[in-house]
Amino acid sequence: MNTIIPNLSKKLQNTIQEEIDYKTKPIGALGVLETIALQIGLIQDTSTPTLSKPTIMVFAGDHGIAKTNKVSPYPQEVTQQMVLNFLNGGAAINVFCKQNSINLKIIDAGVNADFESNSELINAKIAKGTADYSLKKAISLQECELAFTKGKKLVRKIYSEGCNIVGFGEMGIGNTSSASLLMSYFTNTPIEQCVGRGTGVNDEGLKTKINTLKEVYDFHKNSLNTPIDALISFGGFEIVMMCGAMLEAASLKMTILIDGFIVTSALLAANALNSNILDYCIFCHTSGEQGHTKMLNYLNATPLINLGLRLGEGTGCAVAFPIIKSSVNFLNEMATFKSANVSEA
Amino acid sequence: MNTIIPNLSKKLQNTIQEEIDYKTKPIGALGVLETIALQIGLIQDTSTPTLSKPTIMVFAGDHGIAKTNKVSPYPQEVTQQMVLNFLNGGAAINVFCKQNSINLKIIDAGVNADFESNSELINAKIAKGTADYSLKKAISLQECELAFTKGKKLVRKIYSEGCNIVGFGEMGIGNTSSASLLMSYFTNTPIEQCVGRGTGVNDEGLKTKINTLKEVYDFHKNSLNTPIDALISFGGFEIVMMCGAMLEAASLKMTILIDGFIVTSALLAANALNSNILDYCIFCHTSGEQGHTKMLNYLNATPLINLGLRLGEGTGCAVAFPIIKSSVNFLNEMATFKSANVSEA
Repeated sequence: MNTIIPNLSKKLQNTIQEEIDYKTKPIGALGVLETIALQIGLIQDTSTPTLSKPTIMVFAGDHGIAKTNKVSPYPQEVTQQMVLNFLNGGAAINVFCKQNSINLKIIDAGVNADFESNSELINAKIAKGTADYSLKKAISLQECELAFTKGKKLVRKIYSEGCNIVGFGEMGIGNTSSASLLMSYFTNTPIEQCVGRGTGVNDEGLKTKINTLKEVYDFHKNSLNTPIDALISFGGFEIVMMCGAMLEAASLKMTILIDGFIVTSALLAANALNSNILDYCIFCHTSGEQGHTKMLNYLNATPLINLGLRLGEGTGCAVAFPIIKSSVNFLNEMATFKSANVSEA
Repeated sequence: MNTIIPNLSKKLQNTIQEEIDYKTKPIGALGVLETIALQIGLIQDTSTPTLSKPTIMVFAGDHGIAKTNKVSPYPQEVTQQMVLNFLNGGAAINVFCKQNSINLKIIDAGVNADFESNSELINAKIAKGTADYSLKKAISLQECELAFTKGKKLVRKIYSEGCNIVGFGEMGIGNTSSASLLMSYFTNTPIEQCVGRGTGVNDEGLKTKINTLKEVYDFHKNSLNTPIDALISFGGFEIVMMCGAMLEAASLKMTILIDGFIVTSALLAANALNSNILDYCIFCHTSGEQGHTKMLNYLNATPLINLGLRLGEGTGCAVAFPIIKSSVNFLNEMATFKSANVSEA
């Protein structure tokens, strides 16, 4: 599961920075838009970067733990129901992708349901949900490798179709629990500080969720020696598939859009496998899920927006995307002091 | 200069909130997008709000103080040069409005230049710049009333053409100084805490700017008895015109988009004249100009984005606009738990 990711070439750094500074605005006056323009320029190794066929991939998967009703107020069936909602265009991610002209790919990474054949649904199912990790490992090594490989392949496909910027989203009842467990492992943070309300458990439910996940972590902790061990112990299929997909995207020098808590947990795993990936990531939003801020601090990341979104599905990527577009657009389209005959300071 | 602004009807509050809560997402999971959807619904008194002919009005004006070179590193000529840049489509606000399908109106409120006739430039010039307020009042009462009235008339025009959401932007070398003076008056904050680097004065320049504006404030302070006194003392034409325009927009029940430091100083004046205006305002961004955060605190406002922008021109409104669109879109387009057959918590 090694992936080679090229170091970002800094060859054009000064050139791009000069282009930014010559635009008709005070130096630095476009703030973070300037930082993002420079980053995408470096990723694409050009001072005229483009956002080609922007795509958000939503990976759906089920979690054995969800059947215990100890971690989520929603029944497991909601995962498959929401996949159908995605396919019918009724979910938040559909609305935001349509608004911002983003291609949307829905991937069944491991939903506990048989879907009718649908040209809009990408079948990459590993199994019908993970095992209950309070009893055994969530997935096998073989399943982990398969999910990882499938994720890579899916990204190679959209890349071959001309996409150079890809966002990640997910759906899976119970997956804030996997994400909390992975966070605890990768950031070395006590599990109780990693667990939040997810889709919205109440105070009682939160206590149960924390206690359950404490026991789960203790049950597995002696076998957690590598990043792969953590992925196998806690799953889920959608998280492992995203991890492979992200690493492949970076290896192809695509710009990667990071969504909220669960997507960032996949990035924590990817980062542990190859930290070069971070140069290719734009952090789109700070989730309302409490652990996300700590993950972001661990990664030294400051996202573009902080609107209290905690829906997943890649909605943070989709809502923030126009800001990224503004970054690239000002670099390509604004006049310079010289071309506009404006006096400098 | 009194303007009647209707109290926001809360009649549909529960209806709209229910519509929001029935969408296929956990309660509250779209965070601030939900708040904005509700606000616009209440402004428009409907659970199916629309954003019709969104428009950003950029008011340009010159300031007598700019000629002293004590407050800005840029020469006064940059105001007129930037107006030409707006008309030629080369400025940041042009790029962002084009990207986000926002109508852009450029208004000469009082630039120190004669422009050739141009169908893209709205001539509302009061005078060729304000007087130097280190020596006398920046504008006369008559000029103030005229600017105010012209601002109102310009908003009525776009309203009559079908616009129901209007953002404000400005251009004027020296206008962070007027904004700082107004902020000091309206928020009762010592002037040195209101002054920032504007377009980017260095440490030495900042000291000079602060000392200059302290003297100016002291020179006028005994005649500052009403909001109008403050506008007359400190100007500028673009700020007064925005103040009138904002009040008119609220009286017409339009949604008002607030940009950065200077636009917010105009709102401080408008708020002092009729505080009902705040119900109609969406705060788009937190400016990198240091005083803006204090203004926002005074108004109890939390903007949508905080990207270190400090360019003015309405760029914060234009960059944040897609987020507002996402708010309205999810309310109008998302499926409900019932329509999508998704199980509830």
